[in-house]
Amino acid sequence: MKPSTMPAVWLQDGNLQWREDVPVPTPGPGEALIRMRLAGVCGTDLELVKGYYPFTGVLGHEFVGQVVEAPTAPEWVGRRVVGEINISCGQCRFCRRGLERHCEQRKVLGILGHNGAFAAYLTLPVRNLHAVPDAVPDEAAVFTEPLAAALEILDQVHIRPTARVLVLGTGRLGQLIARVLRLTGAEVHGVTRRARHAERLRAHGVQPLTPEQVPQAAYQIVVEATGSPAGLEMARRAVEPTGRIVLKSTYAGAQPLNLSPLVVDEITVVGSRCGPFAPALRLMEQGLVDPRDLLEARYPLSQALDAFEHAARPGTLKVVLQGPDQDD
Amino acid sequence: MKPSTMPAVWLQDGNLQWREDVPVPTPGPGEALIRMRLAGVCGTDLELVKGYYPFTGVLGHEFVGQVVEAPTAPEWVGRRVVGEINISCGQCRFCRRGLERHCEQRKVLGILGHNGAFAAYLTLPVRNLHAVPDAVPDEAAVFTEPLAAALEILDQVHIRPTARVLVLGTGRLGQLIARVLRLTGAEVHGVTRRARHAERLRAHGVQPLTPEQVPQAAYQIVVEATGSPAGLEMARRAVEPTGRIVLKSTYAGAQPLNLSPLVVDEITVVGSRCGPFAPALRLMEQGLVDPRDLLEARYPLSQALDAFEHAARPGTLKVVLQGPDQDD
Repeated sequence: MKPSTMPAVWLQDGNLQWREDVPVPTPGPGEALIRMRLAGVCGTDLELVKGYYPFTGVLGHEFVGQVVEAPTAPEWVGRRVVGEINISCGQCRFCRRGLERHCEQRKVLGILGHNGAFAAYLTLPVRNLHAVPDAVPDEAAVFTEPLAAALEILDQVHIRPTARVLVLGTGRLGQLIARVLRLTGAEVHGVTRRARHAERLRAHGVQPLTPEQVPQAAYQIVVEATGSPAGLEMARRAVEPTGRIVLKSTYAGAQPLNLSPLVVDEITVVGSRCGPFAPALRLMEQGLVDPRDLLEARYPLSQALDAFEHAARPGTLKVVLQGPDQDD
Repeated sequence: MKPSTMPAVWLQDGNLQWREDVPVPTPGPGEALIRMRLAGVCGTDLELVKGYYPFTGVLGHEFVGQVVEAPTAPEWVGRRVVGEINISCGQCRFCRRGLERHCEQRKVLGILGHNGAFAAYLTLPVRNLHAVPDAVPDEAAVFTEPLAAALEILDQVHIRPTARVLVLGTGRLGQLIARVLRLTGAEVHGVTRRARHAERLRAHGVQPLTPEQVPQAAYQIVVEATGSPAGLEMARRAVEPTGRIVLKSTYAGAQPLNLSPLVVDEITVVGSRCGPFAPALRLMEQGLVDPRDLLEARYPLSQALDAFEHAARPGTLKVVLQGPDQDD
């Protein structure tokens, strides 16, 4: 029996609150109601709490759940699903050109205009859902959204098997990026001072380097996933002439950037955000990417504020929240 | 008879000087001695005078001339030539990978470690030379270097015939860029307030717009060739999500740049510098690009300082210098 209110992690005016009285959402036309099973805390969630974007509502955009209602698509009820986070209008000039993730009117799950997954229930349009293959357990499926974001790099940039690739930032997202990029056959290095991060890189065929060990002008591709302005400067030094820097971090505010070296060395800078879910699920189903060793801690939803505190500690890998009534 | 000294435009400590006592260079192994016929004043020359890079020596890197000596390649003597400006070592890791224009040890004609073309004579390695087809007069051939820089955009970025393209900056380089990009079949717009610039755009199938007329988020490709930081901000507003901004300008100093919109909208920023000479000569030989209407004034080399003053006036198109003894 579905209750009328539910517990949720609520953000308002930059304050993170634990609330038990949030109304359970009613799915609109074309939408499904989903019971959350696991949800991951992401760097963007921490940035939202810091005020990167003025969102009010339920946070959370990485999740795996189970469909409990889908009035216009009842075949989905009972399925275990993950969901694309951009909710597009389907009408605007960008949607009509296949750029739905850049819809002018878009809402974004737990980020912009649509309540998120850190709650007992959430809604999403059925067209955003992907059924999770049986071979992919919840503990892997909860990584689908960041794994898709990592795959977006390969959708944007051709990485040759002969390339040398550097990943800056070896936290939650950087580890997934390194695991995806090494599937190209390229030589992938990751920069970290943390022994735990280095160990996980090595276990997945990626060579860890300290910042001092990074050679200059030596990589065709450098992925900046540190979330800090210093990362961009290191990327600039490490990339070869005619190489590419992929920007995976969003940060508040403007950075002073000397553009002339980009022109003289003909560097390309590629902004990269959300990615495709279907290949992320395929890679996990086939065992080509297994993110489960990145899961560092699991908290019940009711201890969400503790989970946020844990996730904010430097060097923390993935912290997930567990839905309150998975066994209903 | 070759004299022992020659007149030249000399830059030292940011001072532009007219000198008549510069020794005529002696071609080294593999080099040719070239008598200058026409040489173009470029925005980079003006930036060098302003101190963009601390160069001492003869300025000038856009030229057409005639080979008068080539000890190791006598078949070149008498030929009318243009020359690539990057003088590479042929040995370093970038040269070995075909990135000679990015050679770690490179000298650059009239810009870095090698005297330039604003003189009666200059030297270049024979491997840098391209014979000018008879159908290309000096007044077109002198544009080969900037036309090659415009073509570099097409070497780096795939521009579809269905694309919408915006060119910011409609001066010397911007006009050439617009003429090259419209060869793709794409719809090309150029932004200017100057009637003379607008007229030349229209004459070559490019639609002029005032800055106020530029639509937002409407172009797949935006080329920034204004040389001013405001140009980058306009490019950012005009480009579509997933679109590309090509940076063609170098400027001194760091610009404050908000990088998050590049990530959120997945914009790619492409630094673009020198380009391929052979296709530039082909396009002019075939009449597909004719730059001659951009030639605004011609000065004898002895009036070079007046020519620089003219070239520095806002809105000026191409000013060229004429070699002192073309009729020898």
